[in-house]
Amino acid sequence: MVRVGILGATGYTALELIKLLLRHRQARITAVTSRQEGQPHISTVHPQLTGRLDLTLQDLSPETVAAQCDCVFSCLPHAASALIIMKMLDTDVKVIDFSADYRLRDVATYEEWYGNRHPDPQRIGKVVYGLPELFGDQIPGSQLVANPGCYTSTAILALAPLLCKQIVDPKDLIIDAKSGVSGAGRTPKLTTLFPECNESISAYSVGRHRHTPEIEQILSLASGQQVEVLFTPHLVPMDRGILCTIYARPLRPVTEDECLELMQEFYRDKPFVRVVDHLPATKDVSGTNYCDISVRLVRGRLLVLACIDNLIKGASGVAVQNFNLMHGFDEREALA
Amino acid sequence: MVRVGILGATGYTALELIKLLLRHRQARITAVTSRQEGQPHISTVHPQLTGRLDLTLQDLSPETVAAQCDCVFSCLPHAASALIIMKMLDTDVKVIDFSADYRLRDVATYEEWYGNRHPDPQRIGKVVYGLPELFGDQIPGSQLVANPGCYTSTAILALAPLLCKQIVDPKDLIIDAKSGVSGAGRTPKLTTLFPECNESISAYSVGRHRHTPEIEQILSLASGQQVEVLFTPHLVPMDRGILCTIYARPLRPVTEDECLELMQEFYRDKPFVRVVDHLPATKDVSGTNYCDISVRLVRGRLLVLACIDNLIKGASGVAVQNFNLMHGFDEREALA
Amino acid sequence: MVRVGILGATGYTALELIKLLLRHRQARITAVTSRQEGQPHISTVHPQLTGRLDLTLQDLSPETVAAQCDCVFSCLPHAASALIIMKMLDTDVKVIDFSADYRLRDVATYEEWYGNRHPDPQRIGKVVYGLPELFGDQIPGSQLVANPGCYTSTAILALAPLLCKQIVDPKDLIIDAKSGVSGAGRTPKLTTLFPECNESISAYSVGRHRHTPEIEQILSLASGQQVEVLFTPHLVPMDRGILCTIYARPLRPVTEDECLELMQEFYRDKPFVRVVDHLPATKDVSGTNYCDISVRLVRGRLLVLACIDNLIKGASGVAVQNFNLMHGFDEREALA
Amino acid sequence: MVRVGILGATGYTALELIKLLLRHRQARITAVTSRQEGQPHISTVHPQLTGRLDLTLQDLSPETVAAQCDCVFSCLPHAASALIIMKMLDTDVKVIDFSADYRLRDVATYEEWYGNRHPDPQRIGKVVYGLPELFGDQIPGSQLVANPGCYTSTAILALAPLLCKQIVDPKDLIIDAKSGVSGAGRTPKLTTLFPECNESISAYSVGRHRHTPEIEQILSLASGQQVEVLFTPHLVPMDRGILCTIYARPLRPVTEDECLELMQEFYRDKPFVRVVDHLPATKDVSGTNYCDISVRLVRGRLLVLACIDNLIKGASGVAVQNFNLMHGFDEREALA
Repeated sequence: MVRVGILGATGYTALELIKLLLRHRQARITAVTSRQEGQPHISTVHPQLTGRLDLTLQDLSPETVAAQCDCVFSCLPHAASALIIMKMLDTDVKVIDFSADYRLRDVATYEEWYGNRHPDPQRIGKVVYGLPELFGDQIPGSQLVANPGCYTSTAILALAPLLCKQIVDPKDLIIDAKSGVSGAGRTPKLTTLFPECNESISAYSVGRHRHTPEIEQILSLASGQQVEVLFTPHLVPMDRGILCTIYARPLRPVTEDECLELMQEFYRDKPFVRVVDHLPATKDVSGTNYCDISVRLVRGRLLVLACIDNLIKGASGVAVQNFNLMHGFDEREALA
Repeated sequence: MVRVGILGATGYTALELIKLLLRHRQARITAVTSRQEGQPHISTVHPQLTGRLDLTLQDLSPETVAAQCDCVFSCLPHAASALIIMKMLDTDVKVIDFSADYRLRDVATYEEWYGNRHPDPQRIGKVVYGLPELFGDQIPGSQLVANPGCYTSTAILALAPLLCKQIVDPKDLIIDAKSGVSGAGRTPKLTTLFPECNESISAYSVGRHRHTPEIEQILSLASGQQVEVLFTPHLVPMDRGILCTIYARPLRPVTEDECLELMQEFYRDKPFVRVVDHLPATKDVSGTNYCDISVRLVRGRLLVLACIDNLIKGASGVAVQNFNLMHGFDEREALA
Repeated sequence: MVRVGILGATGYTALELIKLLLRHRQARITAVTSRQEGQPHISTVHPQLTGRLDLTLQDLSPETVAAQCDCVFSCLPHAASALIIMKMLDTDVKVIDFSADYRLRDVATYEEWYGNRHPDPQRIGKVVYGLPELFGDQIPGSQLVANPGCYTSTAILALAPLLCKQIVDPKDLIIDAKSGVSGAGRTPKLTTLFPECNESISAYSVGRHRHTPEIEQILSLASGQQVEVLFTPHLVPMDRGILCTIYARPLRPVTEDECLELMQEFYRDKPFVRVVDHLPATKDVSGTNYCDISVRLVRGRLLVLACIDNLIKGASGVAVQNFNLMHGFDEREALA
Repeated sequence: MVRVGILGATGYTALELIKLLLRHRQARITAVTSRQEGQPHISTVHPQLTGRLDLTLQDLSPETVAAQCDCVFSCLPHAASALIIMKMLDTDVKVIDFSADYRLRDVATYEEWYGNRHPDPQRIGKVVYGLPELFGDQIPGSQLVANPGCYTSTAILALAPLLCKQIVDPKDLIIDAKSGVSGAGRTPKLTTLFPECNESISAYSVGRHRHTPEIEQILSLASGQQVEVLFTPHLVPMDRGILCTIYARPLRPVTEDECLELMQEFYRDKPFVRVVDHLPATKDVSGTNYCDISVRLVRGRLLVLACIDNLIKGASGVAVQNFNLMHGFDEREALA
């Protein structure tokens, strides 16, 4: 039984993570942390957990967490996360980091897009990117895994086969992405207040969303070529779900069937990617760890449509998938 | 042309008020206030108003507002509202107060339910309650009108006919009320964050919602007897709309038809109350100043079902209705 | 491994049932039926099941289903359901009926409320009502279990302790119920079209909803006295969830704490009822088999607030709970 | 006072049209038609209209409608619409057709995309396309106006300035469009059932949506060059609103400011197009006849973001705008 700790357990990804881990036959949650005062019971913050997890939220030091746990999931904000994680990596505790701190491949890009100095620059570029469908072979031996971003996972899973197989132009990629509101986190903000975003759709952070360099770097890494994307996120009035509608330019004449087959082949042994014929809807994957992908050829362009549940495959589900691989468990444990 | 000022113009009721007044042929908005720094243009705070109202939000003194306007709508919070209004009533500016400050009939009840000393206690009980269907004859001559609460208006319009006509027991009234989220205001709070209240319904403030004494006092005043209600508000995942499902006990045998006729007669000349045969839905009145009401007799109880748009008939629409009556305009101006 | 069949597998409850059973370590789905032509693959009708269940929907005879399965869940409409089930009960197949056919205790009430002759009148009143928290001891030996209605379960679980302990008047009970739209089924209808019910709330079937006699009969049976309720359902713009706000009149002075303790005691060993201090929200139980209940005392009335996920605890979850009890499995298998 | 008839008055666009016309000081609705049996009162079909319009839905012949009205709005489906309209054009009744029958410029394209023979082929290409911002000078003298499609209007208004001014490549245009569910009409269908499309987003009709040729033909006509677009519609869980996110390739280096100014100039005297600096949200235009447009330059591409209310500017609002122009009224009458 692996003793698990969760840092920053008050948000939506932590809640989903806890619900998944409660089903896991090899994991036991032993610590949940938060800076909230008064050490509230976890069920005060997450009423869904009433009667399911008997722990209080405590403001524990990295050392204490490392002592109480075999594996730690950090749901802390970027910069804060690396600061804590650095202090735990000297022990043999395993760490899965939900923040962006260890995802990018170089410090300069991180500092440019995130606007802060990196607390642990020497580790940048050496940490495995925890997308098991692409980097699954590097995960088992890792002490630290950088859990991917939600938009990022969707876009990467959609594009990796076509880029790795040299089907599409790596410099002419448009990713029109749509996300449910839980992706914006649980901190009260005007923009995610119900009467602001309900019954409305809009683009946001056009041209400057931080998942842009992550998509580019990981797709470049995976496909061995320089990839550039135009990424536009939109906020959709729903709790969860991400849909990416991706426009790519084929480098040679292709058919839809050829692309679907290529994708099916690419993900043959990957239990959580479903290449489908129909147009995928976010509801098809809601509450699951699946990524559904399809392709259409329209007027000479390839459209790739991919969707996930942003809180599961886009955060906590893939984290559990990484946890399973790191510990040698069945990849699907707690996720099927 | 009446020059109009709006105090506290950053919220949802102010936005709806402005949209209604822009259609009003006898009103011109000349001042909009807010304590926000930097005097932002109103369209920065309310993008819906782009190109429709060219004013900046300013932190004006009561004297300045009184000098620039013939009529002022206060959308300030309770206590703050009376503090400002007091200072304007020496001039001949007319005032419509959206806050609860002048709604209740006695200071003790106000201070018990609102938890603060009343800034202007000697006026309490002397200000007309601006529900035109019941107190329309007192509004034309008034300098100050207390604009009703949203739940309150719905419950009062639903129950007034049956209470005034002695049809139902005034001490056995259950009001199960459901409201859209805009009723909770525009200040970011965890409880009204989209992923918290979307896909969920719950009761809140059970037994202690501040509209309780308002409903009781105004219904007592209107019907000449002591009225007591059990009022339970619920938060519904929609922008706007209030539905009250009211359970009353008849004092003598009645039929549905008799009650419907009695209600139709009661509201015969009231343009914004529609007594209907079908079960009303909040969507039927969304964006309008209507209150739809129906009655059902079930197992010896009378059910009254009433709905409004909380931002219109429950706030800004009734305010414009009051404005019209105060100035001798057609009651329906800007509202039809 | 129990071989499971699902009759009428195209709707929402069947989909949820399948998803739960796929997690069940002792069940294997071997047949899914539908009258749809062309024997479509189950994933064509339910894209969520892509890659998870490899069966086609077939229009099988009761005999064939009985031969292929050890246990059958019927998701057929009332009347149609009993007609099929009757034919299977001669074999030793176990049956869990989602329809209302075997829930009521007498034929006359069934025929009055459902408007059709009962196909299997002699079994009426002899079939166990599958609410494990109340009738759990009768379920293990049963061949046929009547799976409860969704509103019904919520109302019964909320009221049973107070009625069984003689705390409240059994003739003065008002149940104001609110349900998400999935409760109305998957057949396209104007009333459940998105633009009709989104952004709207309304009551429906006032005084004539078919769950009324079910609530009354089962609560009468459970508490040993004649129970009468006034039941008002409402349609809420959300996918799933039921909240019952229940107004009851205490027969003697009580406190909130006393009632909460009494309820906690009543449900002490029941894993899926959570008696909570806070006001429950449907989101707290969404996707789970929990029923959350709380109590408030307001102006001499007891308010009981209870919520469930209508598709899980209100249909497919409780069905799996019954399945577990009928087969001697852990009650929580596939549900935790 | 213009006597107005509405053909096919049971749907959402007809409802919005009626609500707008009730505010119009020069229009009086005299006939509303439907094939529904029993001549129901309009308020039975549209409860929102209770007490606002006292007409019954009748199955009138074209001749009768033409005799009772000066101007007719047809909300009939394509093909059915032209069949009726043809018969009225011999009288001097004016007609505004909501269907696609007279929008396209040639019969072959119509028959290819709509799959039926055109009932009135000789008029095709001679009817003015009722987008006042582009063809406003041709509308005043017209007897028949083809009211534009909803996606179409949004896309055309967004792209016309950049295409007319030769800023972007007319053959490299990607339109990623998102629409609320009311756009799919009021006929019950599985795909627009609440529990199907709520909490979900998906693309539909990829590569084969009928607004594709309409966008291309009208933009070609307006800009004097062959325009080709890749158009992808998505269904968003909200009642109303369309957002188009458009990706265009500049033909020469441009700046955002230059494009914004060019657009502001292009729409200088057009009261219902607002070129804005911020990213537009559909909520900003909900319930209004505005189209909000902005531009961003990202990695060498121009993104044009445009939104409307699909039922107002995308259907009934623009129809009233056309009505105003045809009759010499202020373009903004009933729309401000």
